[in-house]
Formats: sequence, structure tokens, C-alpha cells
Amino acid sequence: MRITGFGVIDHVDRRLVYISSGCVTTTGTALPQRLKVILDGLDEIIREQSPEQVAIEQVFVNINPQSTLLLGQARGAAICAAVQHELSVAEYTALQIKQAVVGNGHAHKEQVQEMVMRLLELTGRPRPDAADALACAICHAHSSTSRFSDSLTPQTSRLRRGRRS
Amino acid sequence: MRITGFGVIDHVDRRLVYISSGCVTTTGTALPQRLKVILDGLDEIIREQSPEQVAIEQVFVNINPQSTLLLGQARGAAICAAVQHELSVAEYTALQIKQAVVGNGHAHKEQVQEMVMRLLELTGRPRPDAADALACAICHAHSSTSRFSDSLTPQTSRLRRGRRS
Repeated sequence: MRITGFGVIDHVDRRLVYISSGCVTTTGTALPQRLKVILDGLDEIIREQSPEQVAIEQVFVNINPQSTLLLGQARGAAICAAVQHELSVAEYTALQIKQAVVGNGHAHKEQVQEMVMRLLELTGRPRPDAADALACAICHAHSSTSRFSDSLTPQTSRLRRGRRS
Repeated sequence: MRITGFGVIDHVDRRLVYISSGCVTTTGTALPQRLKVILDGLDEIIREQSPEQVAIEQVFVNINPQSTLLLGQARGAAICAAVQHELSVAEYTALQIKQAVVGNGHAHKEQVQEMVMRLLELTGRPRPDAADALACAICHAHSSTSRFSDSLTPQTSRLRRGRRS
């Protein structure tokens, strides 16, 4: 529950281009400080990368209420980082993301990583949280292709996505 | 699940002084927009009132996982509003708050409202969410009295607190 993956891609002439990805990791301090690390970490990425849109995975609701509450708070911080920059935030279920990236809503994690590497022409394998974030960004790019096509600046459409694992 | 109460008090010469209170209400739009309303609403209050410290109620974890997730996200946004201003955020359970304000951890809501009115010398009854927020601020003021006493500016110690109901 301490890792927030992110991935930034460009959508250039209907081609997806990898920009960056990684994880914001919080340490074992008090909740407000951990939320600040997520907020500040994603804020920095947004300032650096200037994404035009953000997508985030719709989370699995944990059976443990305390874990669900923690996840919700972290997710709230991630969404706040985006909305305070006036960015729209799209949400996709894991099923939608796997369907969009692998073509199978029940694909394994390794298949998602593999397809992310292939679609973005990566030479190295991103770590799981970053791969999931990139997959979410790819899903959003596919689902909003028409919007990008009609956009005034389709060459610079950047996508970013935070995810907690 | 759509109301965030807040209360601002001053701590002047060991006396508590009411400054303001109210609620941030979100409408039935999408989650990111609702979190933005909370973030922006509390951000505005913090800019106006310049609190020195923030306290928030430790929430009851709902049995319904979806409600718990929503509550967590809203709580995450409320805490983000404070930490982005570099404010410390203290957390108190409902039991601690009732104990501090009424002297009985199992006091009824009406007793809390009554004591909040008396302690802050209010002429009108604040609405329940605002009263709960003021009670949390009073609890924090009581628990950190020694810190305030040692503070360089004990006359201007302001407390604020957001709460979701």
C-alpha cells in the first residue's frame, strides 16, 4: 500500500510514444505526511511533464475496511494532484485496461507488462506498478483516440496515470 | 457522504474563541470534480483564516466497502488541502473528541453541540457537521495546550478541522 506508479506517454500521429514512468514511494511515517509525499510527488511530475489528461485505475475494493480506507485516502491524494492543475481524470477498471492493452480482460500481469513494452517499444521491463500505470495511459489513449484526432494539438497529447498497489 | 464540515477557533490566553465554521458541500458530479470541490473549498478557508494547525476526526470505517473507499478519498482530499499548506494534521477518534468536549466518550450528538455552543459562547446552534468540526478543534486545543503555552505566538493559534459525514 505504499507505492504509487505513474506513466507518461505521448500520442503522436496515432502512435504512442513513451515519455517516462516510475513510482512514488511513501515511507512509514504518519498518514498526512504520506499523503503529502503522493501529492507533492505527482505534482512535480505534472509540472515537469505537463500532461493534458490524466487516467487512473478504478481500484479493487479490499475486504479489509482499514486497507480500503487507506487506499481511498491515497487515491484521493493522487486525484487531487491532477485536479488542482485543472486536469480531467478518467477512470478505468483493471478489466478495461487489460482488454485495451492485451485484448483479454483477464490477462496476467506478465502479459500486460509484455504488451506495454511492445506497444511503447521499450528496451527494458518497467517495474509492475509503473507498467500498470503505462497500461492505464494506453487504455485512455485508445479510448479517446477520436478526441485526440479532433484536438487542436494532437501531437502533444500527454497522458499520465497514478496507481496505488 | 457529501458534506465536509469545518470549524476555525482561536486560542487566546487559554480561552477558546470562535472564528468561523460551516460546510463544504459537493454535488452529484463525478468523483474527481467532487474531490476538487473539497480541496478548493478547504484551500480557500485555509487561505482566508491562516490556521496554524489542523485536526481531523479519525473516521468510523463503514461496513460497505464502496462507502469506505469514497470516505477515504474525500478524507484524502481534506488532508491534502492542509498538507499542501505545510500544516500539521492531528487526528482524534470520536471517543477522544467527545471525552474532551463533554467529558464522556459516549455522549450524544446533541450534548456535543450543546457543549460546543457553551465553550465557544455561540448564540446560535451550528449545524451538526460544523459542530462536530468545532468539537474536533476544541479537542485539539485542549490536547495541545502545553504546546500553545510554549509557542512564540500563543495568542494567534488557530485550529481548523474538516470532517466528512
